[in-house]
Amino acid sequence: MRELADIRVTIVGLGLMGGSLAGALYGQCRAVVGVARRAETIETALARGLVDRGTTDLADGVREADVVIMATPVRVILRLLAEIGPLLPAGCLLMDLGSTKAHIVAEMARLPDHIQPLGGHPMCGKEVSGIEAADPTIYHGCTFILTPLPRTSEAALVLGHALAEAVGACPLVLEPERQDYLVATVSHLPYLLACALVGTADATTSADTAMWEIVAGGFRDTSRVAGSDVTMMVDILLTNRGEVLKALETYQAQLGDLARLVEAGDEEELRTVLSAIREERLRMFR
Amino acid sequence: MRELADIRVTIVGLGLMGGSLAGALYGQCRAVVGVARRAETIETALARGLVDRGTTDLADGVREADVVIMATPVRVILRLLAEIGPLLPAGCLLMDLGSTKAHIVAEMARLPDHIQPLGGHPMCGKEVSGIEAADPTIYHGCTFILTPLPRTSEAALVLGHALAEAVGACPLVLEPERQDYLVATVSHLPYLLACALVGTADATTSADTAMWEIVAGGFRDTSRVAGSDVTMMVDILLTNRGEVLKALETYQAQLGDLARLVEAGDEEELRTVLSAIREERLRMFR
Repeated sequence: MRELADIRVTIVGLGLMGGSLAGALYGQCRAVVGVARRAETIETALARGLVDRGTTDLADGVREADVVIMATPVRVILRLLAEIGPLLPAGCLLMDLGSTKAHIVAEMARLPDHIQPLGGHPMCGKEVSGIEAADPTIYHGCTFILTPLPRTSEAALVLGHALAEAVGACPLVLEPERQDYLVATVSHLPYLLACALVGTADATTSADTAMWEIVAGGFRDTSRVAGSDVTMMVDILLTNRGEVLKALETYQAQLGDLARLVEAGDEEELRTVLSAIREERLRMFR
Repeated sequence: MRELADIRVTIVGLGLMGGSLAGALYGQCRAVVGVARRAETIETALARGLVDRGTTDLADGVREADVVIMATPVRVILRLLAEIGPLLPAGCLLMDLGSTKAHIVAEMARLPDHIQPLGGHPMCGKEVSGIEAADPTIYHGCTFILTPLPRTSEAALVLGHALAEAVGACPLVLEPERQDYLVATVSHLPYLLACALVGTADATTSADTAMWEIVAGGFRDTSRVAGSDVTMMVDILLTNRGEVLKALETYQAQLGDLARLVEAGDEEELRTVLSAIREERLRMFR
């Protein structure tokens, strides 16, 4: 395996995730090149010391890359995968940071043979977006899911691990379908229920000015991810629709059960159910 | 109005909220007395410097109090209200920290005439409980809802304001029904939906060991309040049942709308709705 210090990495998309990744790799690789649509984004990335070089020209940015990492919304990744192949040098490792993996890995399977594809999904983020919000430390301690294809070489997977570890993350290899199933509940469902909570307040209590004085920590935390980037989330929901809908169905049933217990005033059962849930929550985040 | 420094305050219930309040008032009043069921709780409160004196005897604890603040679960407050009247000296201000107010204020209206009742609800907390978790700073910057009764004197309300401000909170006077309506959406609903989220993971993904490696910030924040004290929450849900059920109904409709948009793959409408929600979330926590 080549040393990280010998490797030229190109990151396509310099938003929160791509800009942060660039900054986390900056100085550890032979070069970190950023590709963005807007020249101002590149100026910001250069000024903040996140990249060695930047360009708005995809072909120019990836021409000499040993590793290319696509850090755009999922459906932009899918479009890039259809066109990027001929632009990449032989043996190039092509990764992505998309939150859903089955569609992306299926598209990666159609890449030209001279490319080593590897799906990636770091389990971190913020409810802010853009290069201004980039923070090279956001990968520290997070799990970085890797979804190799049957054609992915051992060396490419080892390099993927090394890149994840270089930014402070813990790599975890998963099958794409298993990752999509898990992430639907762990990440996409919390987004939708945070949105429904904000929608509820918007439809009712937010007309009362006192609401704005009393929104407390519980509401703030439970609704936080409703502030996530909409373009990113729409792509995620539409490319993981089946798993998201199944998770939603289970969730609605769970909530319906709780509502029935409250309505019935069934104190004993309510206490039993809520205690079990509390124990489970404590077990999850000990 | 009497100066805070002349006032003897007794806090009944030395859990997270009562212990924190005692610690926040300690040194600012003539005396802070704690009443708890268990002698060990009082020992801890004394050792941590949260109270001047402690007792397990309610009558002893409140006999000389100028202010008594009930910091127990809501239904314990309701039981205390039925028996505490004859134990209190004339002119005593009797407050509480309960999360629901209509039932409590109705019960307060039946207190003997020599008592000044005032409902209270500080909009803060943590998902841990007990005197060990007490933190005198948790009231800093929070809104402290006050629900006076028609019989509450101006002087008693002014003293309630002074106590809230003394612990760093911002007092806000609300009618009990209005507070219960608002808090159902702002506080009780987030609890139930966090519980349903944990219940969903428990019923599905948590059987997969990888789930435990990938639970990320979104899930952690959205589910945080599911770790709240169950006895406290059962009392809250059962004494604010009507408002909680109405908020749940609106929430289920909101979530159902989002689910239908995802199912239909209606990208344009999904983007419109999620963008409006994101804007609303940003407006709430600017």
